[in-house]
Amino acid sequence: MLFRQVYDHIITRMERGEWNAHDKLPSIRCLALELRVNRLTVLKAYQLLKQNGKAYVKEKSGYYVCPEAGSQVADGHDEPLTAVSSAMQLNSKLSDIHKITASYQFSQAVIDPNLLPNLFLSEYVKKVFDIYPKLMGTYSTPQGDEELREFLCQYLKRHFRIHLQPSEVLITTGSQQAIDLVGRIFIRPLDAILVEQPTYSAALDIFRAQGARLIPVAISPEGYDLDAVEMLMKQQRPRFFYMNPTFHNPTGYTLPTNQRKQLVELAERYRCVLIEDDAFYDIYFDERPPQPLFTYDTEGWVVYLRSFSKYVAPGLRICAVFGRKPVIDPLIAAKALADNGTPLVTQKIFLHYFQSERMQQHLEKLRIALQIRRDIMEGELAAAPIDWRWTSPKGGLNIWLQLPDTVPAAALFHESLRQSISFVPGHICDPLHDMQSWIRLCYSLVNEEQLHVGVQRLADIAQRIQKR
Amino acid sequence: MLFRQVYDHIITRMERGEWNAHDKLPSIRCLALELRVNRLTVLKAYQLLKQNGKAYVKEKSGYYVCPEAGSQVADGHDEPLTAVSSAMQLNSKLSDIHKITASYQFSQAVIDPNLLPNLFLSEYVKKVFDIYPKLMGTYSTPQGDEELREFLCQYLKRHFRIHLQPSEVLITTGSQQAIDLVGRIFIRPLDAILVEQPTYSAALDIFRAQGARLIPVAISPEGYDLDAVEMLMKQQRPRFFYMNPTFHNPTGYTLPTNQRKQLVELAERYRCVLIEDDAFYDIYFDERPPQPLFTYDTEGWVVYLRSFSKYVAPGLRICAVFGRKPVIDPLIAAKALADNGTPLVTQKIFLHYFQSERMQQHLEKLRIALQIRRDIMEGELAAAPIDWRWTSPKGGLNIWLQLPDTVPAAALFHESLRQSISFVPGHICDPLHDMQSWIRLCYSLVNEEQLHVGVQRLADIAQRIQKR
Repeated sequence: MLFRQVYDHIITRMERGEWNAHDKLPSIRCLALELRVNRLTVLKAYQLLKQNGKAYVKEKSGYYVCPEAGSQVADGHDEPLTAVSSAMQLNSKLSDIHKITASYQFSQAVIDPNLLPNLFLSEYVKKVFDIYPKLMGTYSTPQGDEELREFLCQYLKRHFRIHLQPSEVLITTGSQQAIDLVGRIFIRPLDAILVEQPTYSAALDIFRAQGARLIPVAISPEGYDLDAVEMLMKQQRPRFFYMNPTFHNPTGYTLPTNQRKQLVELAERYRCVLIEDDAFYDIYFDERPPQPLFTYDTEGWVVYLRSFSKYVAPGLRICAVFGRKPVIDPLIAAKALADNGTPLVTQKIFLHYFQSERMQQHLEKLRIALQIRRDIMEGELAAAPIDWRWTSPKGGLNIWLQLPDTVPAAALFHESLRQSISFVPGHICDPLHDMQSWIRLCYSLVNEEQLHVGVQRLADIAQRIQKR
Repeated sequence: MLFRQVYDHIITRMERGEWNAHDKLPSIRCLALELRVNRLTVLKAYQLLKQNGKAYVKEKSGYYVCPEAGSQVADGHDEPLTAVSSAMQLNSKLSDIHKITASYQFSQAVIDPNLLPNLFLSEYVKKVFDIYPKLMGTYSTPQGDEELREFLCQYLKRHFRIHLQPSEVLITTGSQQAIDLVGRIFIRPLDAILVEQPTYSAALDIFRAQGARLIPVAISPEGYDLDAVEMLMKQQRPRFFYMNPTFHNPTGYTLPTNQRKQLVELAERYRCVLIEDDAFYDIYFDERPPQPLFTYDTEGWVVYLRSFSKYVAPGLRICAVFGRKPVIDPLIAAKALADNGTPLVTQKIFLHYFQSERMQQHLEKLRIALQIRRDIMEGELAAAPIDWRWTSPKGGLNIWLQLPDTVPAAALFHESLRQSISFVPGHICDPLHDMQSWIRLCYSLVNEEQLHVGVQRLADIAQRIQKR
């Protein structure tokens, strides 16, 4: 419903402090023009605002903001301290959940630092500083270290036979920054973009803050309904489709090869950029996942985000963005403004560590360790007398668990926190804030013993809620 | 002139691709409402657009975009590749200049890596990895490492008797990111902000891209005209004043103590936040500069940006933002969305290196080395038969040089580049793109021999231009 999105857009602007208590809202005609929508759509949004106590009407004048509708703070110039931050109230609900300290941390999709070869890593770093004695004193370019970009091109060539120039690579501080930069160069207020339902919730927060209209694309163990995707591309003309096709976060699903090829064709036909976020590609258990969509891209409609933070070295936060010049160049310009370049120290350490043989050995051990943890979690879930359901993930860090109707996620969440268990409630991964009966459990952070105890305890809580 | 700024705002939106060729521009009434300005102001801006061939008029309909007015690319959905980036064309002119390779690099305000104690730095890093064996495997929080934030609070207390909690500190990747985050939480389109004339050009690029209306405040060797600042705060109600009061970039000027105190009073009276960017505080030659404005702030109107990239370790890119909770909390939320936290590795290395005794010894040596370089540059400038003028900087990295009328900066710039000399032309540091007869020369990057030869060569070029 477009009017619902216009409504959300107005609320966001109220919360930012753009329109404050008793301000007159723009006329229906003006707002319709500004947002490039029908006047009737704006009217409907205004009526809903009125109905929800967010706006009131003055006869023959127009709609006005209700005192309690917008930000908690008053106009920036009348109140001291409390007001300085009223321009933009950003929120990142996932990072709020991550602030919770819990003994059984199933909320953060992070790998247990004990599974990383820390000692070797540290030894390695020392060598890197011997190779580049002036490393600490040198800035990186905004685009990133050239040696690293060259190596990553070789890497793509070796693994996927993709031919790229170092000029077509941008280094960012984690995939989160890459997602933010993508949003910055593409999104204008109320632009439609496609996102999976569910998806990575921080991406939703970023795109929302940038004013995008989020159009959901359901993802199932078999992938997307491509007819539905085509219809949305045709009707909504989205700026891009942000997707996570391999060991998808939060569900763990993987898009099959035929869908990958067809999606690239759809992208070309409907001029819709595909943002392929591929942070989990290397974390597979049985067999290597299908080739990235980027492999099938010949015309430059796919932007490939490849984070290595998860399993190489989270402390370094290195992500690479691959794409053709017309997309990469504006991304570099946005990166230059955003922070003028990722630290050179982390780039050089990553480069030398990632190409070492030891790294490949580590990766193989890591896959086995994570598979064991997944198996333990699944074993405990299966043993519990609760009718929860899930699709066994073939890679990645999470299990996407559907709760029975008798166990409301909100009750489970609150009771679990009291007992020092944390997880991500499904609705924050949903662009429509729905999916109330799902939760995301991460099996990669807590150790094997804690996995047994934590999931058993979670099942006990669920059982008690069920019996109420 | 407000209409001129509305004009610039419209041009920016055309360049972003928001309004494309033959699109109808919003009605004067609508745009006036949206931008919260008088209708006459919009009318004047539209007339200027027409006059400059950016817009045309259709009788009884309104103003339309001329085909050649906006972005070089067509609407995002009709052209393939070239169009994907049309939503936002960011630019950063300073980083363009930095791409130039020159033998005599006077353009980058960066310290020669040979002046940094590289060997010791590298040795030090190895120790840090022994202290934190799991460093590589661990994420930082978005706000930054707590140990580092605690140390920085102690640091402020020891040096300036400022009492802060670690919760009032945010770690960013360089001051550039801090400036970007400040802009993100404060600026709404066409909001007025005060900036110095001249100032750090990348900050201008950032604030412009965020839609701000830049109001210049002239800076002289004696500081600002505070009556003028008060008038601007009263009339324009700026969201903030972005300032660099100590060894100011590009001029090297330093604000005296009495002005610092008065500015904080003005900030409180007119509810105008002061963004105090203080990257050069420690780089003084004779005596320690006056206390930061932040020292005099009791009500929380000053946000203190303290970058350590310049002289501690550019390869680490560490900056701290100090401020009271109502400003810091939204900044943390913005940081969480922007990149979810600066790498932990660089934060820990910085922490341990910065508090070492060796670092303090290094800093004292560095001051002497930079002072020598400044003296060489000034000696060569004084010896040249050109009537250029400057105020000798008491710290920082730059000399702000006024050219005689007989030597146009543009001619000097182009001829210098041909002879492998680079510098920053003054107009890119000016919010009004004026100051054509000034240039910024950085004396910290090239070595002593190069300083002699480079400045002599620059003087020769200027002399030839003068004789034409």
